[in-house]
Amino acid sequence: MSGKKILLTEAEVPQKWYNVQADMPKPLDPPLNPATKQPIGPEALAPIFPMALIEQEVSTERWIAIPEEVMDILMIWRPTPLVRAERLEKALGTPARIYYKNESVSPPGSHKPNTAVAQAYYNKKQGLKRLTTETGAGQWGSALSFACQMLGLECTVYMVKVSYQQKPYRRSMMHTYGAEVFPSPTDRTNAGRGILAKDPECLGSLGIAISEAVEEAATRADTNYSLGSVLNHVLLHQTIVGLETKKQLEKANDKADIVIGCVGGGSNFAGMAFPFFPDKLAGKDIRFIGVEPCACPTLTRGVYAYDFGDTAQMTPLLKMHTLGHDFIPPGIHAGGLRYHGGAPLLCALINQGFIEAQAVHQTAAFKSALQFARTEGIIPAPETSHAICVGIQEALKCKETGEAKSIVIMFSGHGYFDMGSYDAYLAGKLQDYEYPAELIAESLKKLPQV
Amino acid sequence: MSGKKILLTEAEVPQKWYNVQADMPKPLDPPLNPATKQPIGPEALAPIFPMALIEQEVSTERWIAIPEEVMDILMIWRPTPLVRAERLEKALGTPARIYYKNESVSPPGSHKPNTAVAQAYYNKKQGLKRLTTETGAGQWGSALSFACQMLGLECTVYMVKVSYQQKPYRRSMMHTYGAEVFPSPTDRTNAGRGILAKDPECLGSLGIAISEAVEEAATRADTNYSLGSVLNHVLLHQTIVGLETKKQLEKANDKADIVIGCVGGGSNFAGMAFPFFPDKLAGKDIRFIGVEPCACPTLTRGVYAYDFGDTAQMTPLLKMHTLGHDFIPPGIHAGGLRYHGGAPLLCALINQGFIEAQAVHQTAAFKSALQFARTEGIIPAPETSHAICVGIQEALKCKETGEAKSIVIMFSGHGYFDMGSYDAYLAGKLQDYEYPAELIAESLKKLPQV
Repeated sequence: MSGKKILLTEAEVPQKWYNVQADMPKPLDPPLNPATKQPIGPEALAPIFPMALIEQEVSTERWIAIPEEVMDILMIWRPTPLVRAERLEKALGTPARIYYKNESVSPPGSHKPNTAVAQAYYNKKQGLKRLTTETGAGQWGSALSFACQMLGLECTVYMVKVSYQQKPYRRSMMHTYGAEVFPSPTDRTNAGRGILAKDPECLGSLGIAISEAVEEAATRADTNYSLGSVLNHVLLHQTIVGLETKKQLEKANDKADIVIGCVGGGSNFAGMAFPFFPDKLAGKDIRFIGVEPCACPTLTRGVYAYDFGDTAQMTPLLKMHTLGHDFIPPGIHAGGLRYHGGAPLLCALINQGFIEAQAVHQTAAFKSALQFARTEGIIPAPETSHAICVGIQEALKCKETGEAKSIVIMFSGHGYFDMGSYDAYLAGKLQDYEYPAELIAESLKKLPQV
Repeated sequence: MSGKKILLTEAEVPQKWYNVQADMPKPLDPPLNPATKQPIGPEALAPIFPMALIEQEVSTERWIAIPEEVMDILMIWRPTPLVRAERLEKALGTPARIYYKNESVSPPGSHKPNTAVAQAYYNKKQGLKRLTTETGAGQWGSALSFACQMLGLECTVYMVKVSYQQKPYRRSMMHTYGAEVFPSPTDRTNAGRGILAKDPECLGSLGIAISEAVEEAATRADTNYSLGSVLNHVLLHQTIVGLETKKQLEKANDKADIVIGCVGGGSNFAGMAFPFFPDKLAGKDIRFIGVEPCACPTLTRGVYAYDFGDTAQMTPLLKMHTLGHDFIPPGIHAGGLRYHGGAPLLCALINQGFIEAQAVHQTAAFKSALQFARTEGIIPAPETSHAICVGIQEALKCKETGEAKSIVIMFSGHGYFDMGSYDAYLAGKLQDYEYPAELIAESLKKLPQV
């Protein structure tokens, strides 16, 4: 009998988040006011975020304590297992050691509640009654619905229409957790009405849904906005994943040679990778690979520049890799990876050469997902499958070279709500998309001049 | 911070199954040959089951060792957490201590793989290439598909048509695990063709699907049949759940006053309850409550008599509570509880007064499920919700009497594949069914004379 699962006790769960801003060789370029092109102050964010999160957004403290009330809810599912994927290794015939950190064991089924609970907590503490947000595949929306229910807040979710249609049961889950859910673009906001006037059939995008949720929060005093990725404080809250993983690898007397995660906004990958960053700075030979879909190649084919975080140009300008703020990617099944930009912290470290990015096609991702499900038993979300795909590629490289590397895959969520995508893949109906260079160039022409 | 999850280490997982047949005050009435009305011998089962399982079926050994190869696969998700439902307790304002044993953490999402893996293993060991089975809600079918994939067997599943339609994603999961799936009744078997000739619109039932799967196994040399509940060996394999729970309660310095589980065939409830049976025999004050749907009231309104296990009268006669072998319950959302009979071991202990049975309506079950999801965070399967409903009722009784009882609920599976049912409940579209007494009496007239 093997001990495949490397478990921590509840007492071993990290009590502090790790803030990578303390260790960055160059400080982060600040968000800019789109009108003045000057750095924005905290007051610009106060209409939609609580002060505690605004402080975390700019903090350079290395360690930030996790409030006890947050920890108490995280403990519903944390610590999560780190699993040695021995069956997959055997099927691949690789000398590599493959580990996956199983964040799918949370009630909403992904890493997302790690930050949803923290955000709901700080908003509640500041007296807010209600949160709005956007969601792509529905993982973030259901995570925030769950968190709001646990803390007694109301929750309104703008769900990207293509996912609303493809994944009705994510919407049911949000309803079960007591949230209200609308397919975006809607006619509830100026942002939504503007898009619908131009294209009544618009399938939506994360950028549009963000505009709608931000608009609603900005115009209601009892309501704040909550973002599931991209921002510094979101990535901070996810570092509990990487911190647990480091302890678990120690328990297994192992280390990480390659750390892999999928990238939509970047929070799951950053949450896993950032706690290993000081090791890399200290000279350890460790690779970080963020994996995005070829259909939305932000990191591999976008530019590193200031751009809006949303389509309707309501957010501050963020320095990040971007395909242009009104880039709308095709309706691939990994809905959570359809974002035109990336987290500024992650993009800065990519730009400085510390972190790599790769893009894979969705059929390749599903092929890997099927191999994973049929060996390890667990069915990955389409988003997660992108990370698994590159994990398998790296393990196969080890097979060629004979190197016994340790590969750590961030298993960000399960695919129980994505079985229609598996049907489509098994029926040979999935298409791959290679975005034409001229369309990306066209989209990038609209970047704001800074 | 609370330690809500009571965890075992992998080394603490029980290495043997507990066989309640060793401790029953009266031996079990044997299965009978329907033609001769004489007890059947092992040779009667040999065309569809491997010898190891036939031996377990009749064994009176108290402890049966779990093979290492089986344990190795169970360890993908075992040991499972026993969770103190503190948030639910608080919401109810009860002095009771409520625990739930979370079997939803297995890859297929229920307790079912505990026996699926064991059955696939013994069949593989005897050289079989393929297993057939039936499935109601799809939990058993996906569990066997998973187990067959892990052990390298082929798998064919007959899925009750009403569930095939209501829960397409369970079918997708079985496909993802490499199985083939047919909506039953089909035109692939004599049993299915016979039903369809009488009623082409038939929505199916577990009884019909069993007939189809058994027929296919009986007529192919390389193929055996696998049953997800009812039989003694199935209940045996599930006792790992109750054995773990006993160890976990010891760790929490607690004991069980009331043990509750839902009953379709009876295996999840028996797997939880049977390991506590010696304590009851030894005089401890402990109640066991099996909970069934009012729409299929086998234990509370059926008779205790010999009957066929399936609709087409292909199985041996089993002594059990039954509503009649061609009773077809309405298409309630707890598809896994739509069975006309019950496990002979469980029924015998009910008949002898050791175990209680209660029936609840599905709207009451969903109301409880929603309260559970909104406090504990996890969304229960409709089947599991029946157990939660009675658990909440017992906790509320404690609130009235002021008794601080310990209530253990078997959390048999999650509801991620049942969100359509939650939609229907939230939209007020769910109906309750109280089966007319005269229809049950009519159905019972067809019991075989023994």
